[in-house]
Amino acid sequence: MQRFPDHLLNGYNNFMSGRFSEQQQRYKALAETGQQPKTLVIACCDSRAAPETIFDSGPGELFVVRNVANMMPPYEPDGHYHSTSAALEFAVQVLKVSDIVVMGHGRCGGIKAALDLDAEPLSPGDFIGRWMHLLKPAAEQIQSNNIMTAAERQRALERVSIRNSIANLRTFPCVDILEKRGKLNLHGAWFDISTGELWVMDPKTGDFVRPGM
Amino acid sequence: MQRFPDHLLNGYNNFMSGRFSEQQQRYKALAETGQQPKTLVIACCDSRAAPETIFDSGPGELFVVRNVANMMPPYEPDGHYHSTSAALEFAVQVLKVSDIVVMGHGRCGGIKAALDLDAEPLSPGDFIGRWMHLLKPAAEQIQSNNIMTAAERQRALERVSIRNSIANLRTFPCVDILEKRGKLNLHGAWFDISTGELWVMDPKTGDFVRPGM
Amino acid sequence: MQRFPDHLLNGYNNFMSGRFSEQQQRYKALAETGQQPKTLVIACCDSRAAPETIFDSGPGELFVVRNVANMMPPYEPDGHYHSTSAALEFAVQVLKVSDIVVMGHGRCGGIKAALDLDAEPLSPGDFIGRWMHLLKPAAEQIQSNNIMTAAERQRALERVSIRNSIANLRTFPCVDILEKRGKLNLHGAWFDISTGELWVMDPKTGDFVRPGM
Amino acid sequence: MQRFPDHLLNGYNNFMSGRFSEQQQRYKALAETGQQPKTLVIACCDSRAAPETIFDSGPGELFVVRNVANMMPPYEPDGHYHSTSAALEFAVQVLKVSDIVVMGHGRCGGIKAALDLDAEPLSPGDFIGRWMHLLKPAAEQIQSNNIMTAAERQRALERVSIRNSIANLRTFPCVDILEKRGKLNLHGAWFDISTGELWVMDPKTGDFVRPGM
Repeated sequence: MQRFPDHLLNGYNNFMSGRFSEQQQRYKALAETGQQPKTLVIACCDSRAAPETIFDSGPGELFVVRNVANMMPPYEPDGHYHSTSAALEFAVQVLKVSDIVVMGHGRCGGIKAALDLDAEPLSPGDFIGRWMHLLKPAAEQIQSNNIMTAAERQRALERVSIRNSIANLRTFPCVDILEKRGKLNLHGAWFDISTGELWVMDPKTGDFVRPGM
Repeated sequence: MQRFPDHLLNGYNNFMSGRFSEQQQRYKALAETGQQPKTLVIACCDSRAAPETIFDSGPGELFVVRNVANMMPPYEPDGHYHSTSAALEFAVQVLKVSDIVVMGHGRCGGIKAALDLDAEPLSPGDFIGRWMHLLKPAAEQIQSNNIMTAAERQRALERVSIRNSIANLRTFPCVDILEKRGKLNLHGAWFDISTGELWVMDPKTGDFVRPGM
Repeated sequence: MQRFPDHLLNGYNNFMSGRFSEQQQRYKALAETGQQPKTLVIACCDSRAAPETIFDSGPGELFVVRNVANMMPPYEPDGHYHSTSAALEFAVQVLKVSDIVVMGHGRCGGIKAALDLDAEPLSPGDFIGRWMHLLKPAAEQIQSNNIMTAAERQRALERVSIRNSIANLRTFPCVDILEKRGKLNLHGAWFDISTGELWVMDPKTGDFVRPGM
Repeated sequence: MQRFPDHLLNGYNNFMSGRFSEQQQRYKALAETGQQPKTLVIACCDSRAAPETIFDSGPGELFVVRNVANMMPPYEPDGHYHSTSAALEFAVQVLKVSDIVVMGHGRCGGIKAALDLDAEPLSPGDFIGRWMHLLKPAAEQIQSNNIMTAAERQRALERVSIRNSIANLRTFPCVDILEKRGKLNLHGAWFDISTGELWVMDPKTGDFVRPGM
């Protein structure tokens, strides 16, 4: 039998003897009562930016959707299936979260791909190309600037993309209504893998600032 | 200014004084060299089933896509954007992962929704309904069985859904080719929130078994 | 008699009873032997970003030219007087400094003025307008981007301007020659007034990074 | 990577653990509200005469332009860029400072260069020569005196130059008007590097006197 990866089994054993045994009652209660997370996090697939790690979150705290470049597409009730929109709907309508965090990070491979405007498709399906197409107008505008460095342009698009996703969140009627009623707060955050710094978005200006500074 | 949630900032401070300060060099190196995870995990958004927690994974280990009910849709090169397929393509074509784990869990709200065949849409967009539509034939077949309890049916669909996703993975040419060349391994796993048990799929039979037992 | 400002006299008394009395011998020696600073800093006039404060520098350490937005104009041997070029020439040819630091900072009023492309002149002489004209092509390129926030555009131009000044430094034959001989090093730095963070320019990429991180 | 100078990084670390940590709230407030200095200082680049050091000034107190020999050129609305005039305009028209201090010092290399009437240009551009040309009539007059020592002539020109700059300040319409309205005060000061003495100009007579004496 093709083995389940050893590093995952070893990690699982650590989990069982560590966190799970410490929080056994909590896991059991969460199984019985169901989850009641207050926060939806829309995060990237990147292996270096897991929200539970960065926010040191325990079980039941964060409802997390992860896709390439932590993007929220706009409201498109077109009859197709939409993975991220489904997760949003579930979080808002079923779980009734009070906060949504769009969480980006530095050195994002998806954002880098979006900035590579002349890239060849990775496969005939061109799934990355299609997905990053959501950011194409922004990527083109940023690439038209030739005085910022490549790294600066990437960081700029990483942040523009977070604001873009927050704007897209507001195209969903349920988000728009609840936010206006003061029952739902939208947040942006950006994590610097290299330094560990967390930057959060000022909701008034859209700027990213160090919290508490 | 609307505050960034305190529980996240507190958690972040724990992270910085704990794991980040212990692994600062690793984070820095990962930022500079880029991520090279060997494993893609397709997991659920559920707040109780974060893969990094369950597999006690450090930064750089797992590339994680999370959607409602950890589903991999089939290959559909239709010109629309597909969040999960984009993440798959990125993991396989860019990061060249060697293992893909479809990871389900017990008491999954998405699976429960899929089994509620007469449910009203949660919103006019009916995003959850559309998304769980991917499982509709399986859900109908399971619901037609009236001698299993509701909990048993749910657990059954949770596992059927994992096998379904693995079958869908193989509809992607890149996955199919690499698996046949022995360069890519597909795995299923299922986590019991209540007991902490991990079950892994026997690739030959499709059964879920306790690893090492 | 119109009084010399009290706050300056009070500060001067602090200086005399503090630093000067501690470093009296050093001041005396510096007066007799002349200054031999190793570093020229091109800094902004801003009251919040004095180089001696930020680098905790003692007497004799830094030769400092300060103008609005810490700009180095290009080499223009046109027979007019050029304040900053004169200071550069003095530092390089007379004092033979080994390092030049172009030091910018956040929330720079000069950079903000440069980005206000439609501003009315502040006076018939329009001195600020003429001075910031040195940055006009960069400012126009950055303002053509409407998806970065105002603060992000300002920070981008603050950094572009530092690179611009470093490029202008190299248009001076004496700088170019000495740098190529390895006798003169050019550096960029950017200070965040709000957080106190110092970012230094990577000479290879032009990116700004936290030193030692 | 060519390193940022260690002595600057060490100094910066002192600043962060010292003054910045003591005045963190002040820096933050200054960043948010913007600077509101009441005083413009026109000072020399000399490494031994930093105004913030001599006046023991904290962040936000002094708006400082520094050029060789702390000179204010006359009003020349000729369409060229003028670094010092731009700084003056910014301080008076935007920041609305109430005091301007022209601050000279002993053993000034720029003044010494101005007195060397037969000096060869330091470079083909002759930037120092052109800049000190602003003082040429005064330098010639002082050098025509052959009974003062070289040191006496230098000190004399240092003070003449301060009065010269104050006269030039008054050629700017905005300075002239505001001074006549009693909203702007012009001051001269001269610092003796060797003894630490500060001398301030009596606005009526132009003499330099020890303040409070």
